[in-house]
Amino acid sequence: MARMTQRRKIHRFRLDGSGTELPVRFKEDVIAAEEPLEIRLGGRSFAVTMRTPGDDFDLVAGFLVSEGVIRDQSELVSLRFCAGGPGEEQTFNVVDAQLRPDVRPPDTMRHVYTSSSCGICGTESIEAVRKTQHFDPSADPLTVPVDVVAGLPDRLREAQAVFEKTGGVHAAGLFRVDAGEPELLCLREDVGRHNAVDKVVGWALRQGLLPLRGTVLQVSGRASFELVQKAALAGIPVLSAVSAPSSLAIDLATETGVALVGFNRGDTLNVYAGRNRLDRPAVTEARLRVGAGQ
Amino acid sequence: MARMTQRRKIHRFRLDGSGTELPVRFKEDVIAAEEPLEIRLGGRSFAVTMRTPGDDFDLVAGFLVSEGVIRDQSELVSLRFCAGGPGEEQTFNVVDAQLRPDVRPPDTMRHVYTSSSCGICGTESIEAVRKTQHFDPSADPLTVPVDVVAGLPDRLREAQAVFEKTGGVHAAGLFRVDAGEPELLCLREDVGRHNAVDKVVGWALRQGLLPLRGTVLQVSGRASFELVQKAALAGIPVLSAVSAPSSLAIDLATETGVALVGFNRGDTLNVYAGRNRLDRPAVTEARLRVGAGQ
Repeated sequence: MARMTQRRKIHRFRLDGSGTELPVRFKEDVIAAEEPLEIRLGGRSFAVTMRTPGDDFDLVAGFLVSEGVIRDQSELVSLRFCAGGPGEEQTFNVVDAQLRPDVRPPDTMRHVYTSSSCGICGTESIEAVRKTQHFDPSADPLTVPVDVVAGLPDRLREAQAVFEKTGGVHAAGLFRVDAGEPELLCLREDVGRHNAVDKVVGWALRQGLLPLRGTVLQVSGRASFELVQKAALAGIPVLSAVSAPSSLAIDLATETGVALVGFNRGDTLNVYAGRNRLDRPAVTEARLRVGAGQ
Repeated sequence: MARMTQRRKIHRFRLDGSGTELPVRFKEDVIAAEEPLEIRLGGRSFAVTMRTPGDDFDLVAGFLVSEGVIRDQSELVSLRFCAGGPGEEQTFNVVDAQLRPDVRPPDTMRHVYTSSSCGICGTESIEAVRKTQHFDPSADPLTVPVDVVAGLPDRLREAQAVFEKTGGVHAAGLFRVDAGEPELLCLREDVGRHNAVDKVVGWALRQGLLPLRGTVLQVSGRASFELVQKAALAGIPVLSAVSAPSSLAIDLATETGVALVGFNRGDTLNVYAGRNRLDRPAVTEARLRVGAGQ
């Protein structure tokens, strides 16, 4: 947690209705950390991303899945922090990934900065992104009661430790929903929502859990093209977002067989793709049966 | 507006407290559009970004400012939509920018996709980003009453046409605050918050308004490193965000002389950098004077 947040001195103004300024409270506040992470493959620089430090090995593993480089934990031989250069200090901002010798690294090493909100930098074209498909979410027959999905944003929020402190990070939570009560398998937070998802996917790869059948990925913000892409690449059959999807997110979800839920606010939700994965609420069925028996 | 939004069929579920599903309403909804835009310089591909169509010339101009390529409207000879290739359809997703012959194009043409939320893709290093400084915000002596800044999020929200329809876009609004009542000079919306800011900066460049002295840039979401960088590059002295800043955003704002306001919620706001630019509320001063005269 330490590196995920930093402390900064701030000035807080409070303006009441009359426009009067209350005394400035000079205080320290907890801020979501944002630092660059350089990802190397076998010692060679591959990409740099802005991210919230923490779970960096998961982030790198998930990034490599999303980039189409790996799809199985056996393809990732090792992950280690290394210093930026000879004699340089260990900053824990450079991670070197060693791939299994038979894994083909990407054609181009890229010295690009991806921002904390950027998940598809360096890909040559949208078509290329769409073709890179490790797993097929549409092969997963999962259906899930709509009230179960509606309950996930609250579950996510309760588990968000960094957001609680800073109000400044996105979260992605992976829930297993095909075996009784939904179970939170993994929660990750980051200033960049694509990083939060990469961290979850990387965790799953390292646990040997890909493809992520029987799961719902709940995210705290909006659903853009890149988040649907990451879910599809990891074989996640349902992506649920608290806010709006974009048009391209809907199109890609439809193409790849990912059910896309948006504006999931607990009491209402919208289904933009994969309506057939959403079942009637289980509780209602039970109540109806009880009602019928009376 | 037409291309900024698209219509999609959706299913909306409403769950009341008892868990009963109300009838599914099958309807069409208005969705924020997300499409790729390829940016070319003199016919050669430079970058591709995911964005909400609309104000694309502003976006390209602002992107070139943020990339450190241009800083004055005279350096940008022309902007035009072109087809992707010979015989290809005009999709309005490719813009070619013609620079003045003496303007040095970037060293590397980059065939990278930047996502809709990514503003610094392709930059070689953070240090390089920090050094590219067209204008010096710290040279602007602007101070602004704290209640004026506190009023900007409401002004922004009232003017957000696409958000009103979709709930799915970020906004950036440029307010002139050094001449009486704050005046909204330019508002731009996009699924990517860095695009919204690039569109505002590009608009200003094309109007011959850089550096943007005497202004506050109000954004709808969080303040990341990249947004502070874009504000600094355009000479904007105050950046105000509705949500949290990251640690690196605060550091860069402090370095470049940009005042950084976060969690601007109308009745409270936090100042993370440049406290000296925030004055006591003007209305309070007036009231105090009135009070003293009674």
